Amino acid sequence: MPNKEIPYKIYLEENEMPKQWYNVRADMKNKPAPLLNPETLKPMTFEELRHVFCDELVKQELNDTDAYIDIPEEILKFYKMYRPSPLVRAYCLEEKLQTPAKIYYKFEGNNTSGSHKLNSAIAQAYYAKQQGLKGVTTETGAGQWGTALSMACSYFGLDCQVYMVKVSYEQKPFRREVMRTYGAKVTPSPSETPEVGRKILQEHPGTSGSLGCAISEAVEAAQAQDGYRYVLGSVLSQVLLHQTIIGLETKAALDKYDIVPDIIIGCAGGGSNLGGLISPFMGEVLRGEKNYRFIAVEPSSCPSLTRGKYVYDFCDTGKVCPLAKMYTLGSGFIPSANHAGGLRYHGMSSILSQLYHDGYMESRSVEQTAVFQAAEEFARVEGILPAPESSHAIRVAIDEALKCKETGEEKTIVFGLTGTGYFDMVAYEKFHNGQMEDYIPSDEDLKPGFAGIPRFPGNEI
Amino acid sequence: MPNKEIPYKIYLEENEMPKQWYNVRADMKNKPAPLLNPETLKPMTFEELRHVFCDELVKQELNDTDAYIDIPEEILKFYKMYRPSPLVRAYCLEEKLQTPAKIYYKFEGNNTSGSHKLNSAIAQAYYAKQQGLKGVTTETGAGQWGTALSMACSYFGLDCQVYMVKVSYEQKPFRREVMRTYGAKVTPSPSETPEVGRKILQEHPGTSGSLGCAISEAVEAAQAQDGYRYVLGSVLSQVLLHQTIIGLETKAALDKYDIVPDIIIGCAGGGSNLGGLISPFMGEVLRGEKNYRFIAVEPSSCPSLTRGKYVYDFCDTGKVCPLAKMYTLGSGFIPSANHAGGLRYHGMSSILSQLYHDGYMESRSVEQTAVFQAAEEFARVEGILPAPESSHAIRVAIDEALKCKETGEEKTIVFGLTGTGYFDMVAYEKFHNGQMEDYIPSDEDLKPGFAGIPRFPGNEI
Repeated sequence: MPNKEIPYKIYLEENEMPKQWYNVRADMKNKPAPLLNPETLKPMTFEELRHVFCDELVKQELNDTDAYIDIPEEILKFYKMYRPSPLVRAYCLEEKLQTPAKIYYKFEGNNTSGSHKLNSAIAQAYYAKQQGLKGVTTETGAGQWGTALSMACSYFGLDCQVYMVKVSYEQKPFRREVMRTYGAKVTPSPSETPEVGRKILQEHPGTSGSLGCAISEAVEAAQAQDGYRYVLGSVLSQVLLHQTIIGLETKAALDKYDIVPDIIIGCAGGGSNLGGLISPFMGEVLRGEKNYRFIAVEPSSCPSLTRGKYVYDFCDTGKVCPLAKMYTLGSGFIPSANHAGGLRYHGMSSILSQLYHDGYMESRSVEQTAVFQAAEEFARVEGILPAPESSHAIRVAIDEALKCKETGEEKTIVFGLTGTGYFDMVAYEKFHNGQMEDYIPSDEDLKPGFAGIPRFPGNEI
Repeated sequence: MPNKEIPYKIYLEENEMPKQWYNVRADMKNKPAPLLNPETLKPMTFEELRHVFCDELVKQELNDTDAYIDIPEEILKFYKMYRPSPLVRAYCLEEKLQTPAKIYYKFEGNNTSGSHKLNSAIAQAYYAKQQGLKGVTTETGAGQWGTALSMACSYFGLDCQVYMVKVSYEQKPFRREVMRTYGAKVTPSPSETPEVGRKILQEHPGTSGSLGCAISEAVEAAQAQDGYRYVLGSVLSQVLLHQTIIGLETKAALDKYDIVPDIIIGCAGGGSNLGGLISPFMGEVLRGEKNYRFIAVEPSSCPSLTRGKYVYDFCDTGKVCPLAKMYTLGSGFIPSANHAGGLRYHGMSSILSQLYHDGYMESRSVEQTAVFQAAEEFARVEGILPAPESSHAIRVAIDEALKCKETGEEKTIVFGLTGTGYFDMVAYEKFHNGQMEDYIPSDEDLKPGFAGIPRFPGNEI
């Protein structure tokens, strides 16, 4: 095996870039449970789902048999504008930690959306355009997904309507302005426009909103307008599919230098980045070809994998979406206001939930001050200011590298650095000023969320 | 000549990256005029300058004979963390404009400082560390340079004291927080600490500060502390030298694909980016090997090249710095408050001033609404949200490409995209809301600035 010198950053050539997404469900013996119609409790059909999502995306959502799906030419073209993303060898971090471990990170922040979200946004916008739609609606929390979708819609000339969680809309006017630069219409959620928003405002006057609520509003807005569909930035299997571009590029870059990872780490909110990063490696494990450790990292204040229930639950607070079987804290669960980063979603991708349930993946929950400590340490030596979400993965990567220091093991650690923190400086400021507090919900705190999970035969908690 | 397909982004391999900076002064017949001691009006000596700047940097400042200067190993190592920057073929912009022109841009925004400033910051921090200094002081306006220097100092474990123009300090708390993440001490300028700041505050109570004033404070602060030196982010010849990494990489990338540019365009404030980008190409012109058009783009509200005087002037408002011969609007000139972008400096690099004076370069001044129109158009098709400064170059690149559309010429246009606009959303918001106004100073408006230029024999305006 040639001992090639590993550069700081491995970039694939254009002709080495993946031309297909990888659908890990094809290699799963235990397939993720299907989405259910909450009224009939029967699996959602193509016909039912196509009222909400674009036809081609519904096909992808329901496809658990084809391992590879061609990436359309137009999407490959857009990918070339900001991809491949670099796989970076964290030489400086290794030196700082004095660890024998070899650390790599796949950096998805070098595009204006500031994160990996653009990988799926461009795909969803493309299929909407192909179907001849006028536009799409969506929700956004911190704003990464909304920004990504605005960019994608602007590229294809589609109308883009974003329901932005009100507290973020007010606290992050700059994110809103980036979306406006790309021509999107941004509405604070809950709003007066869709019925579900009005209803929520009546029940909770003065509420600052939540992601689950913004989803309900966006879905309703799409259904109320001719030629519109709803699109979602995480959780769904179609989104994980598009995000496999991350893992496929990572694998190609590692293979190019004969590098075999021992541990692969990603932060997990709805699961899109983690799922995208690990899918191709997981496929090797599922097919019995290789063995890797996978670690999902979540905030201890929103611990869906580590402390959630594996049951069917609503994807949204307004309960207008189908039921998904997933690790969930209950669709009514709202993370503590003091929680600074993203990763605030109550549930987890069905694919990842099933894999976790079957023992293919570990999970770890971390507290936010430890996360920001890792973020700052990383920023100072690696030069990139990470997003709070991404910093969850950094935290655990550092922890694992420090374990190697103790044991002397030369493990190879790969983690996903999903984005940059330029719009998160309020949280950094809190951290610098010593005003950031950790919060671990007690079992009692989690009870109200669990109580809201729908019960029916086979769905006991 | 092989007709290789041009990828969207050209990245150099690590072994193709420049290992020396290029010193264009070595190839200039008419050397830039030396810095003068304002009291004696004699050229500043090494001994005089080393009280202000690091020894090695003074040597670089005074060196107008060596064409190539080795980049130290440690700096090359740091460069590898965020360089090479991509040379991007703007296929999507070309398509949008329907122009036969071929447009390329060198994108320097993919690092946390958000701009090219890091190229010189890391060099200056390195030499300070080599000299055994404790720390450095500097000024920053919008915050790009301060951020870059904070990152560089953090990497080498140096103390970093930044005087930030008060209006930016208050309006851009996020920039300040990024600097704090890297451990810098950020003081709003004018401040109470250095004498010059106190003096300015007494004379102008409640002033919101200016770059020229912050420079004065930073210089004084460095001189008041043992083991400190002052560093500057633009204008100086040493800074242009470090920034030639931009032009050298650009040239290597173009050469790799046998691309010969016709026009090279850059925005110009103090001149560091423009000088760095064009130097290697200018060298070919100076040596009679090639011929290119160079265009410096500046805001019409701060038009030092297009409307300034070519004379000796102070580099700072407090008049504690040496005199430099340059195109200047007078060290007391303060651009209109309504001016949104950076590029607010009253003077221009001595190197660029001399080259412009000798007819090697054109200059163009543009109004800010036209600049933001170009920025938005670019963002929507190329996916990158540009800094207002960089967008000056985009404006003229688009204008030139549209001329090609009229004439049918297939010119090759290269421009410098110096950075991203994530911290400039207030300006974008003004633009979106139709609240941005253009301002072209009248001849009368420029008079007070010119009146402040020092007069002595040979320095008449």
